[in-house]
Parts: sequence; C-alpha cells; structure tokens
Amino acid sequence: MAGHMADALDLNADAGESFGPWTLGRDAELFALVSSVNLACGFHAGDPLTIRRAVTLAKAHNVSVGAHPGYPDRVGFGRRSLAARPEEVFADVLYQLGALEGFLRLEGLPLHHVKPHGALYLDMARDAGTARAVAAAVAAFDPALPLVVLAGPGGETMRRAAEDAGLRAVAEAFPDRAYLPDGRLAGRAVPNAVLHDPNRIAERAVAMAQGEAFAALGGGAVRVQAETLCLHGDHPGALENARAVRAALERAGIAVRSFGASATLRPERSP
Amino acid sequence: MAGHMADALDLNADAGESFGPWTLGRDAELFALVSSVNLACGFHAGDPLTIRRAVTLAKAHNVSVGAHPGYPDRVGFGRRSLAARPEEVFADVLYQLGALEGFLRLEGLPLHHVKPHGALYLDMARDAGTARAVAAAVAAFDPALPLVVLAGPGGETMRRAAEDAGLRAVAEAFPDRAYLPDGRLAGRAVPNAVLHDPNRIAERAVAMAQGEAFAALGGGAVRVQAETLCLHGDHPGALENARAVRAALERAGIAVRSFGASATLRPERSP
Amino acid sequence: MAGHMADALDLNADAGESFGPWTLGRDAELFALVSSVNLACGFHAGDPLTIRRAVTLAKAHNVSVGAHPGYPDRVGFGRRSLAARPEEVFADVLYQLGALEGFLRLEGLPLHHVKPHGALYLDMARDAGTARAVAAAVAAFDPALPLVVLAGPGGETMRRAAEDAGLRAVAEAFPDRAYLPDGRLAGRAVPNAVLHDPNRIAERAVAMAQGEAFAALGGGAVRVQAETLCLHGDHPGALENARAVRAALERAGIAVRSFGASATLRPERSP
Amino acid sequence: MAGHMADALDLNADAGESFGPWTLGRDAELFALVSSVNLACGFHAGDPLTIRRAVTLAKAHNVSVGAHPGYPDRVGFGRRSLAARPEEVFADVLYQLGALEGFLRLEGLPLHHVKPHGALYLDMARDAGTARAVAAAVAAFDPALPLVVLAGPGGETMRRAAEDAGLRAVAEAFPDRAYLPDGRLAGRAVPNAVLHDPNRIAERAVAMAQGEAFAALGGGAVRVQAETLCLHGDHPGALENARAVRAALERAGIAVRSFGASATLRPERSP
Repeated sequence: MAGHMADALDLNADAGESFGPWTLGRDAELFALVSSVNLACGFHAGDPLTIRRAVTLAKAHNVSVGAHPGYPDRVGFGRRSLAARPEEVFADVLYQLGALEGFLRLEGLPLHHVKPHGALYLDMARDAGTARAVAAAVAAFDPALPLVVLAGPGGETMRRAAEDAGLRAVAEAFPDRAYLPDGRLAGRAVPNAVLHDPNRIAERAVAMAQGEAFAALGGGAVRVQAETLCLHGDHPGALENARAVRAALERAGIAVRSFGASATLRPERSP
Repeated sequence: MAGHMADALDLNADAGESFGPWTLGRDAELFALVSSVNLACGFHAGDPLTIRRAVTLAKAHNVSVGAHPGYPDRVGFGRRSLAARPEEVFADVLYQLGALEGFLRLEGLPLHHVKPHGALYLDMARDAGTARAVAAAVAAFDPALPLVVLAGPGGETMRRAAEDAGLRAVAEAFPDRAYLPDGRLAGRAVPNAVLHDPNRIAERAVAMAQGEAFAALGGGAVRVQAETLCLHGDHPGALENARAVRAALERAGIAVRSFGASATLRPERSP
Repeated sequence: MAGHMADALDLNADAGESFGPWTLGRDAELFALVSSVNLACGFHAGDPLTIRRAVTLAKAHNVSVGAHPGYPDRVGFGRRSLAARPEEVFADVLYQLGALEGFLRLEGLPLHHVKPHGALYLDMARDAGTARAVAAAVAAFDPALPLVVLAGPGGETMRRAAEDAGLRAVAEAFPDRAYLPDGRLAGRAVPNAVLHDPNRIAERAVAMAQGEAFAALGGGAVRVQAETLCLHGDHPGALENARAVRAALERAGIAVRSFGASATLRPERSP
Repeated sequence: MAGHMADALDLNADAGESFGPWTLGRDAELFALVSSVNLACGFHAGDPLTIRRAVTLAKAHNVSVGAHPGYPDRVGFGRRSLAARPEEVFADVLYQLGALEGFLRLEGLPLHHVKPHGALYLDMARDAGTARAVAAAVAAFDPALPLVVLAGPGGETMRRAAEDAGLRAVAEAFPDRAYLPDGRLAGRAVPNAVLHDPNRIAERAVAMAQGEAFAALGGGAVRVQAETLCLHGDHPGALENARAVRAALERAGIAVRSFGASATLRPERSP
C-alpha cells in the first residue's frame, strides 16, 4: 500500500536559544535553510533581546515563526522532566506565547505555530494531562495555531490532545534519528539512535516527504508520515546535515515551505 | 487661578505581586476599592499562575487591568536601579506586555494601560533614554495604551517621552506621600515623606481630585493635578488608608472610575 | 517486642524560606520551640540576606543549624520532582552547603546536619541514584555531617545511601502526618493524611519519642522510631501544633535537644 | 624616580563563565597560560556543574583559584551597575565565596584570592560603600584572602576598603587596555581604549612587570605598577594575545606565578 506524498514539506529548526551573553546555535546560517523556526520564549532559553533579534532575522529570511515554549529550567535547558501540575503548564505556556507575540507584532509578523521544547514535548507524548494543558493554552491564545506533534504512534497522546482542543496537529519527524519498526522514535540512549551521515539523513528526509519506507532500527522497514522535518544547527556537522536535506528535497522536486493552517498533505496521485 | 476639577478619578493599585509560594499584598480586598490595577508581569514579581489568578480577580471586580513591568530583579523586587541599555529596557518591557496580554485574552479583557514599576519608574523620571525606551515599547505594542507618569514637574521627562511616542500620559499622584512646594514628590528618605493618618490621606486625595492646594512639606501649599491616585494594600494600615480615600472621594461626589484612552480632566465649572 | 526509648529528642523545622521581599513562615516564633532548623540555601527559597538573618536568629535562639538544599525551582518552591542527573544533584547540593556555611562562619556556628527539601527529599526516598548523589555531596563537604532521612521502611533507600557514604543517618518522623500500618508515611493526597488536632499531634509526638505504637491510617497500630520530629510554622495552626508538641514532650520528661554526630538512641531500660 | 621591579608576576583570567548548556570562553586553553583564575560563582555566570568542572581543570593545570563574585544579573552578565545596598552586596559576596569553596574542598584546593566581577568591580572603584561591603565579606570569610583591586589612582577606593578591612590588596593591570597619563584606565567607550596588536600588548605587559613607563593614551608616558595582569580568552584573538604576553614575560626572565598572601614586589636593585 502506498503512502501519502507531499509536493511540499516544511523544514523547521529550533532557534533563538541564546541567552544574555551566551550564544547557542548558528541561527543566521540555519534560517537560510528552513521554512519555519521555533523560537525559545525565555523559559528554557532566550531572553527579550535574543527574541527580538531572532524575530528580526526570521523576517529577513522570510521564515514562519513558531513559539517554542519550555519548562522554566534555564540551567537544564528545559531538557529535564519537571513534575509541574497541568494548571502550571497551562499558565507557563500561555505566558510564553504572549511574550513572543509582542515581538512579532513589532515586525508585523503572525505567530505561525507552537512546538513545545525538550522535556515538555516528551512529557506531552507520555502524559495526557500535560498534553492537554499545553493544547488548552495554545487554543486559549489562538485556536488557529497549529500544534506540532511527534509523528507516528509515539505522538498519539499529543495528537489527541491537540485535536480535542480544536487545534490542527502537525506531525513532525526527525531525519537524523532512528525509528523502530513500529514507527516510534528510538530513544537517544539506544545505540545508533542518531544518524551522522549527511547523505543518509538526506535520503531519509526524502523518504519521509514522499511517504516511502526506510530502514528501521533493528531490521525491517518503517514509514513515517510527516508534514514537517526538524533540522538542527547547533554544530557544524548539524549544519552540513541541514544543507544536505534541503538540497535533496529540492532535487526530488519537493518544495520547502511552511505548513498552513489547514492540512497540506494530499493523497498520492493515482496511476 | 483655579485648578482643574474632575468629577471622576481613577484609583490604581499595584497587584499580582505574589511569586510562587510567596504571597504579597491583599489583592482581593484591594480590588474592591480601586478602579484599576497594575499587574506585575513576571520580572520583579508575578509568575504565570499568579498573573492568571490576578486577571481572574480583576475581571470579577470589574477593574481595568494595566501592565506593571519592572526590571529583571526578582530578589530586589525591581526596586534597585539597574544600568540597563535602552534596547534592553525596550525588549524587557515589550516582553512583559505580551506575557500579560495572553492572560487578558483568556478572560476577554483588554490591556488598559501601562505603569512601570519601582526603579524603572523612577529611572524614567530622571533618564530620558530609559523613558523613551519604555514609551517606545508601549507604542510598539499598542499606541492606544495610556502610560502612567508621575504628576508634576518630577514627571516631565516621563511625560515628554510618552507624548513624543504618541502615547497619552496619565498623571499619577500619591495621596499618602508628602510633596515639596514645587510639586515634586519628597523622597522616601526625607523625614515625614510618608503619611500615616487615614483622614489626612483621604483629605489629600480629595484635594488632588479637585485640583485644590494642600500643605507642602516644609511649609506652604502645593497643587498636584492627577488623573489617577495610587493606593497600597500591602499591610492592614495601607488597606485602611485605601478605604478612607475611597469613602472620602464618594462623599465628595467624585466617581471612582478608570481613565479612558482620551483625557478625562475638564476645566472647572465657571461660576 | 519493645521499641527503643529516647530521653531526648530533636525537634526540627524548615526555616529561612523567605525570598527577597516575600516573607514565608514565622521563623522567630518557631525558633523558640525547636532544637534545630533546616535553612533554605537559595535554590528553592532563601536568598543571601534571608540566610544571613536566619543564621543570626538561630544563634540568638541557640538552635542547631542544618542545611536544607533543594532543587533549583524557586517558582515551584522545590516541590516538583525534577529529572536531574546525579552529577547535577551532587553539584547543586555541594554548592548550597558551601553557600550556607559562609554565613555560619560569620556567626561562629558549625553546620550541624543536612536535610534535603521537598521533592529532592522524596526523590531520594524512591531513587537510589538521587539519594547517593546527595549523600556523596554531603560526605565530600564534611563526612561528619548527619543526613536526615525518612523514618521507617519508606526511608530505606535514603538510609542506605547515607550509610554507604559513611554518614550518620538520622531518622525523621512527622507527628502531624498519618502513617500506614507498614510504617510508611501516607501520601498527602490520601484522605486524612494530615492531622489537625494539636492534642492528637502532641500525643503522637510523645509516642514517637518513646517508641510506642500509635494508630495507623486504615486501622491497626504502627511504631515509628525517630531521632527528630519535623514541626511546621507556616500558619497559625501549625505554630499551635508545634507548641503542643513541645509542651507534651516536656511533660513526658523528654528533653528537646538537637542530635549529635553519633547516635542518641539507647535501648529501653530493662525491667 | 625608579619604579619597583618584580622577578615574578601573576597572570590571571576570568573563567568558569559558562552556564548550563551555554559555553563561554576557552578555559582549557587559557588555563595553560595563566597562574591564577577567577571563577564565576553562579550569580553573573557559572552554575554548580560548571564550577565543578572549572575547579577540576584548575587543579589539573596547577593554577591558583580565586572567586569572581558578581551581581545577581545573569542575563546582563553582571556588567550592569545595580543599586544594591551594602548589606545586600555583603551577603551576595559571602554567599558566592562559600558556594565556590565547597568545590575547592572537594579537590583539596584552597581559595586563593577574590576578584570581583564586572559592574561590581567598577562600582567598588567609585563607591566606598560598595567597596567596603565587598571587603567586609571577604574578611568575614577569611581575612587571609587577598582582594584584587584596580592598579593606579582609579583603584584607591578599592585599595583603601581592602586595607581597612585588614586584607592585602593586590593591584591588577590590563595589558590590552589604554591608560591615561595620570595612571587611570581609559573607559572602553574612549577611542583606542582597547589594544589589539599582540606584540604591543606583550611589550606593555613586560613594562608593567618591570615598573617601566609606557605610552599613555593622549600622549606622554605612564607607569602602572601591578602584581597581576588580567588576560582574556573569550575569542581566538584574545588567546593569541595571552600567548604573546606569556612568552614575552618568560623571555624577559619574569616568572609567571600566582601572588602570595604577603607582598611579592621588591624594590629595584640599587646601582
């Protein structure tokens, strides 16, 4: 059975993750490769001046700007699960969306989507209460905002929370990460969970865009449908990978553009 | 020459200044006495959950909600002057306005005004660069937002920055504080700078509302024109003062209501 | 079989939990009732000036000062479990012990013990890696420091980590909390998990001190051996409870004094 | 009149200024060039894990470890003057010294000196109250700790505060900065205030070590006596400068070693 195939796909990247005097990531180089960015909102990373600069950069590169809210854990970069109550998660996310939106208003840009960060994203995938709290905050802020969720069966809890809140869920896949035969993302601690070869990563990105199967970790093949692929730019190798993905998609005739408020996937052309 | 006289006046109070497990102020009692509140936005005080609760409380009491942005100095409660560059002040204020606005949106309330907090307010009064940075952030967020400034000659720098940015400046006076003969607020360190007698504070509030002169510190009389008077509620005595002010204004036939987007002062009735 | 009986017992209280402008707890009243205090070290609560004042107060009341390190989560008051790696926990605790010790040095007081706070304490009880990280930090700072651990079977992981690190483990019980028949503390969410009657709390404290059984939650009796009992002072009722405990112990001939570096429990007198 | 001449000189560098996921500076390369380091203590930069790693690195390179306390302003990197009261400065510094000392204890290293950071250092130079508060905290922690102060007339307030508190003041100069004819450091905003040529910086370092005059900004010559020279390592050019200084000192027969608890300067040989 054939999968769906897109003639266009979003490439997203986390950005605006510097803080005060500390720089993280190579935003300027990365913004030239992606169609959307997820900007840190000041909790796990980012500060008002960093956000302002990132929004200006996004405008200059004509990329869509999403919010990248995280747990209030700067020293841990929002990567540590925190046992926050749903009402705390709700308020924390709403606060961060508003804070970012002020800077978008300054540049005349709309807020395009929301993609939670790090441990908050992962906690949503495994805990319905957390997922619903995030989705409720997004819906309260603007029900037209798409919520990025993990593609595949591992993202079901996130997807359901988004849809129950009336939000469009946008499936995200990771071309530099290994997937298990059942379509789940392999944890980072699993051997070979992270791919390093730019060519292989680029091929996988094309397969994900075209709804084709690719090799699963541990044998067999897996198909992962996604509307957006996450790229990284925090080290030179990551940038090289990002460039390879972008070039391969273009060679395959797949336009790189950010997703809209309604679904962009369409059924594969019938023969 | 007679002063201006208002048939209505705003009473404002700083609120939402709790943080995490720590409670500050008696918001519920204070909200019943004022027509507008200035809510801390998370930098000097306030956290997302605290903001949410304060906004809900404001809605229940039908008071107008303004933003109360401050320096990023929680342990110092935003009361310590900080040598921030104008671009930092601009970004810090814009961030805080947006953060608060998300919660207002949740309750269907508009953001009504902006009143900077503590050392940021005082630094605006003495430093034009700081004043312009705050005014620019408010104007970028929403040019219809009034900016509360210190009444009298001490507030000229603030007023000019607001007006140069196209904002309406709303003069604020402090009925529990002493004024010098030239109309300036006496510094807290000056002996007798703070009034404690509820009756005297209430009389002064009525004088300020009616544009009448009252006793200046050090002798003589002073007239302080204001559209809003600041009340406090952080200790039982402060609440008693607030109640006395409210009652005295009502006895004098002066309605307590929040100021609008255009001026509410009108010339005194001619005989 | 008879339990152990102490002729002296420590009463401890968490203190120094104010932060900047925010006051929490009634330290002055509580310090008059206990023999030792656990001072927040700036991560979940406390700031340098607050610590300084709490140490001065402790000296004035002649109570032993322990460190009360917590997770770096001020807005959550250290009450939310955080998935910190052991090396992070180790460093966070070591940092906090040193920070507190500077203020003790100023007053010529020794650091007496360590009692982890909130979620860190509970995470130690259920996760050996966290417990070992805390114990290692304490041992690195000063191997003569006792580590307070949860009394009963729920505290076995903490106790083992302390003893494996060469530390003396001091069992702590909570006279205002319900215990299950197996000696475990009932979770706060369980109905009737928290006692409110001062007399009943005081009786339970005496039973704990004397190694006598008391009513378990859900029926039956339970015996909880402890060298220190935790009192609270964060609201008027808590202070009343603390006073009742202190008075009951004194009536029972049990001295209230802080534990030493070696065990203070002794076998019950034989008949 | 001839100046003093040293046969040994300390080279110091600020280090341990990373935070959480954010790296700043090239500590490993810099530690190979200096004889002492000033480690951030968690307020303007540094976190417990960063401090631990920096202390381990210092031990491996056999460099003396000083504390580098700063204002509690992480986003501003402690570079913004903050109107803190002396009692706040005192407590903030004491807290930071203790926090660092726990990690030194872990490695069996002594705390060697204290050098305040950024705006705190500059505020000490111009405000006696701030200078005395820092000196009092150092003396309370350990009166044998030298306090690094600005060399020349601009550092008189710092020097006096140190000496009045019974501390040894160690004069610091900056070989990559311009000095005015009166011996004061030129502010960074002054044109040509910062030197970039490694050879010229190295020559100046040798002149400072030997008590010889060098060209002042604006004409004429100036002599700056110092026991320690500050090097930077936050960018490749800074590291090149540091290497040039080290090499030039060695060629001139001046040993690079950290200062002791008593003065290391000696009078120039008489003819």
